[in-house]
Amino acid sequence: MPVSPSQDSYLVGLIGAGIGPSLSPALHEAEAGRQGLRCLYRLIDIDVLGVGPEAVGDLVRAARDLGFDGLNITHPCKQLVLGHLDGLSPQAEALGAVNTVVFDENGRAIGHNTDVTGFAASFARGLPDAPMERVVQLGAGGAGAAVAHATLTLGAGHLTVVDALTDRATDLAASLSRHFGAGRASAAGPDALPGLLAGADGIVHATPTGMAAHPGLPFPAGLLRPDLWVAEVVYRPLETELLRAARALGCATLDGGGMAVFQAVDAFRLFTGREPDSARMLAHFAELAGAPAHR
Amino acid sequence: MPVSPSQDSYLVGLIGAGIGPSLSPALHEAEAGRQGLRCLYRLIDIDVLGVGPEAVGDLVRAARDLGFDGLNITHPCKQLVLGHLDGLSPQAEALGAVNTVVFDENGRAIGHNTDVTGFAASFARGLPDAPMERVVQLGAGGAGAAVAHATLTLGAGHLTVVDALTDRATDLAASLSRHFGAGRASAAGPDALPGLLAGADGIVHATPTGMAAHPGLPFPAGLLRPDLWVAEVVYRPLETELLRAARALGCATLDGGGMAVFQAVDAFRLFTGREPDSARMLAHFAELAGAPAHR
Repeated sequence: MPVSPSQDSYLVGLIGAGIGPSLSPALHEAEAGRQGLRCLYRLIDIDVLGVGPEAVGDLVRAARDLGFDGLNITHPCKQLVLGHLDGLSPQAEALGAVNTVVFDENGRAIGHNTDVTGFAASFARGLPDAPMERVVQLGAGGAGAAVAHATLTLGAGHLTVVDALTDRATDLAASLSRHFGAGRASAAGPDALPGLLAGADGIVHATPTGMAAHPGLPFPAGLLRPDLWVAEVVYRPLETELLRAARALGCATLDGGGMAVFQAVDAFRLFTGREPDSARMLAHFAELAGAPAHR
Repeated sequence: MPVSPSQDSYLVGLIGAGIGPSLSPALHEAEAGRQGLRCLYRLIDIDVLGVGPEAVGDLVRAARDLGFDGLNITHPCKQLVLGHLDGLSPQAEALGAVNTVVFDENGRAIGHNTDVTGFAASFARGLPDAPMERVVQLGAGGAGAAVAHATLTLGAGHLTVVDALTDRATDLAASLSRHFGAGRASAAGPDALPGLLAGADGIVHATPTGMAAHPGLPFPAGLLRPDLWVAEVVYRPLETELLRAARALGCATLDGGGMAVFQAVDAFRLFTGREPDSARMLAHFAELAGAPAHR
């Protein structure tokens, strides 16, 4: 690995598709600057480059050779990158997905998953007293798998994974039960949602519904009730229709901004070995997102 | 080409072999910092990477894809890189060598040669009134070719290229005559040096002799005389045995530091589109080189 004579400088980037609007460069570079570090965070967009997701291996090797200290990895490369790394953190290995790669002093590429640790940190901060005996999660895609791991790591008694794609929910529940113990997770279809929510402490929403391109509610607002907590993964907008409906009813809520920020907080710590100021990064994120961050 | 949302940041690097001691990262990063630019300058050492000089093409493409704004190129890649570029500056095209690559907004890689412009700027600054009717140059390697182009561009009437490798001197002289006009350059062997220097206005020294690994004088000090100017390309040490002998005799001299700095000055301007403070970069270089820069 090339060793730069520069001290206190960090070169990192994000590999993924359609990442132009990412707030990660601003979040990382600003926090680094406040700590007296010179940091450049580059966007490496496979759509812009005109290459497929399988190019992630070559891009990771090139980044190592050209003096990058680390990378974030996002859709659609989080699983594909696994085959090109020299080691994995426990979370990344359990999940089978990597969103952060750190090059060590020997040029070894180690994969981490700060989506998992980021959601856990955001949840512990935003809903510290939430009961977790019975949790329902809607959405079993990539983000869903990460937050499901985080939720069970946080101590949820039982997690029911609901997805319109039944196979995906079943596969995730089976994987969760292998990692966290038999009976900790099960799968269901959307039809079961009314019954599940009636007996649940809280719901984690991990589908794209509520984003600008997918407006609306992921399930009827009538299924909410004041003592059901609602944790959202969508962070654009920060206040989704689901959160608005839940807050109107008096539910405890967690917006998606916390996960977005804490995955960056954890990545920053991995990249630099320094402790970021998470409150400062949360405030910066809220400013960038153009809305007050309700937490 | 990836477009970073960061403003006022520049990511550049140096591709070459054995470049660990390069002062370029410090020179570029410090000047950028003084201008309020965040700049990272990475060393991409093919010896460290364990690849051959022919890897330069892949490294240039990778740097473009990963968000670099430009590259410096040094031994042994300055010629090899030509086949991997989308355009050349007039100096780079005339010389057939590139030491600076700039990626434009369309991702096109344009090659420049700031060794040529850097030596010319250093000479114009350090020996502004030097007579140039008859100039002798010792050394017809890569650095020699660059400074020969610079010397003729500056208006030397006739340049005689001397090298122990006669073919190399002959080839360079032929190339110079094609570019600058028949009769502007000729070649000779070291045996001719006494006669040539007796009738010359000045000498440009462009061999490695005088570097720490090649101590000594490149030719007998007895061939010097007070009205012969001496321009040195070696800059480690800044005061070579040749310069010491020439100064003791009262010759006007130019050390190699100016070329080292002005190639960086010109590269900085190409990378950033901003005018660097060359006096500040010269002072920084002298400080880094650990010796007063005689100019």
